[in-house]
Amino acid sequence: MDDMETMKRFIDRDRYARYLGAEICRWGEGYASARLELREEHLNSVNTVHGGVIFSLADCAFSAASNSHGTVAVAIQVCISFFKAVSGGTLHAEAREVSRNPKLATYMIEVSDDSGSLIGLFQGTVYRKSTPIEEIIG
Amino acid sequence: MDDMETMKRFIDRDRYARYLGAEICRWGEGYASARLELREEHLNSVNTVHGGVIFSLADCAFSAASNSHGTVAVAIQVCISFFKAVSGGTLHAEAREVSRNPKLATYMIEVSDDSGSLIGLFQGTVYRKSTPIEEIIG
Amino acid sequence: MDDMETMKRFIDRDRYARYLGAEICRWGEGYASARLELREEHLNSVNTVHGGVIFSLADCAFSAASNSHGTVAVAIQVCISFFKAVSGGTLHAEAREVSRNPKLATYMIEVSDDSGSLIGLFQGTVYRKSTPIEEIIG
Amino acid sequence: MDDMETMKRFIDRDRYARYLGAEICRWGEGYASARLELREEHLNSVNTVHGGVIFSLADCAFSAASNSHGTVAVAIQVCISFFKAVSGGTLHAEAREVSRNPKLATYMIEVSDDSGSLIGLFQGTVYRKSTPIEEIIG
Repeated sequence: MDDMETMKRFIDRDRYARYLGAEICRWGEGYASARLELREEHLNSVNTVHGGVIFSLADCAFSAASNSHGTVAVAIQVCISFFKAVSGGTLHAEAREVSRNPKLATYMIEVSDDSGSLIGLFQGTVYRKSTPIEEIIG
Repeated sequence: MDDMETMKRFIDRDRYARYLGAEICRWGEGYASARLELREEHLNSVNTVHGGVIFSLADCAFSAASNSHGTVAVAIQVCISFFKAVSGGTLHAEAREVSRNPKLATYMIEVSDDSGSLIGLFQGTVYRKSTPIEEIIG
Repeated sequence: MDDMETMKRFIDRDRYARYLGAEICRWGEGYASARLELREEHLNSVNTVHGGVIFSLADCAFSAASNSHGTVAVAIQVCISFFKAVSGGTLHAEAREVSRNPKLATYMIEVSDDSGSLIGLFQGTVYRKSTPIEEIIG
Repeated sequence: MDDMETMKRFIDRDRYARYLGAEICRWGEGYASARLELREEHLNSVNTVHGGVIFSLADCAFSAASNSHGTVAVAIQVCISFFKAVSGGTLHAEAREVSRNPKLATYMIEVSDDSGSLIGLFQGTVYRKSTPIEEIIG
């Protein structure tokens, strides 16, 4: 319960997620899901969702999943593939942990559109610090 | 001159770049530079710039550089490494073309802070369509 | 049946797979599995399997899966994460297709050890040519 | 001098590099170069150099460069792009350090053919252990 509260406060502190419109829907040990309702300001020059928006939504889920074990995790390297251009509706991101040791952890995040089609796949690795999350959110 | 004008209109159509605050400073055949003045809304839960912001700035430079040859280029796979957490000032992104054939091209984008320190390195590949840029911006 | 025969001949032509000791165990439309019995010559300076060996085994499965649709596919960008160092036994790679259109396709390849632990994760994208596989194997 | 000797012994212990035919030509703090004379056993099903060979050569240079600071470094995530298919001659890899802190470091490795054309670009990150190299090579 305390952990849930701590994590909720951690997530609420993400100013960029809020500015973008990304919402963390669910989270737990090693996983998280997020979503984003597409608006005009998420589009690129060819009227489809900007790659930066797809990455950012996935990154929000990645952050929630990787910071779910009580200590701070920082992203070190990420690979993302883009499969399909979309222009509207809601994007959904699901993060799951594929590997974790005391210092490093790796997550896969699938981003899909309203029809359930995969539009992006994000493979990211974090470095796990020893700093407690609680210390950060003060 | 016409090409410069076309490219300028292409860049101006990027709604997300504008929302984020990213500005394309220079562009030409196979290169581009961009910058972003950091504000409160670019920060993550630990008060440093969100990875999504660093990626997005680099992605704007990537888009300008890869769409500079007259036809539409779409991102297919990107790798990004993060080196240093920053909290303020201006971020700078420099994109250069490392390979290009009629169908594919790859770019490296360096993101640095005001002190000139490298904070991220982005390696991205595009698929080059035959659609003229002019057709898109109508 | 003819397709199976063609694919078998395609796989048999891979001189490096044979030199390495990698064996394609199963293959079909959009998937493939491969394995490698570890030997002394697969080790690096710290007596664990060389990253190049893990990548190469995954790459063999990636090649079989991505060339399974009748036309030649060439790798354009790959990301690989390494999770665990192993020194002996057999490595297993499983490739599955996560996205495919007429020009591009993306595959995830999981590499595991004899205990079933994930030791690497490979996310790779190919460019799909129009050249028939049969034309290549003459 | 002692360091040079230690590093030479570290490099000589790489059984897979020897089996593949990869040779470390030069090395120093944060850099290394390697080369490989192409032979029949380096080819794939379409008679060009196997992606696993290009990766492996780059990985040998990556290993030498990242282990050049006296302590053991292990690869955690790598991205590689492939630009050009070659079938013979010698491949050359040049590794340079782009970022390093006490726990993590990132390297770019360029792989080129005899004509100097870039055929692959490798961006790799290591986790830096505290184990001295000397302890490993006993």
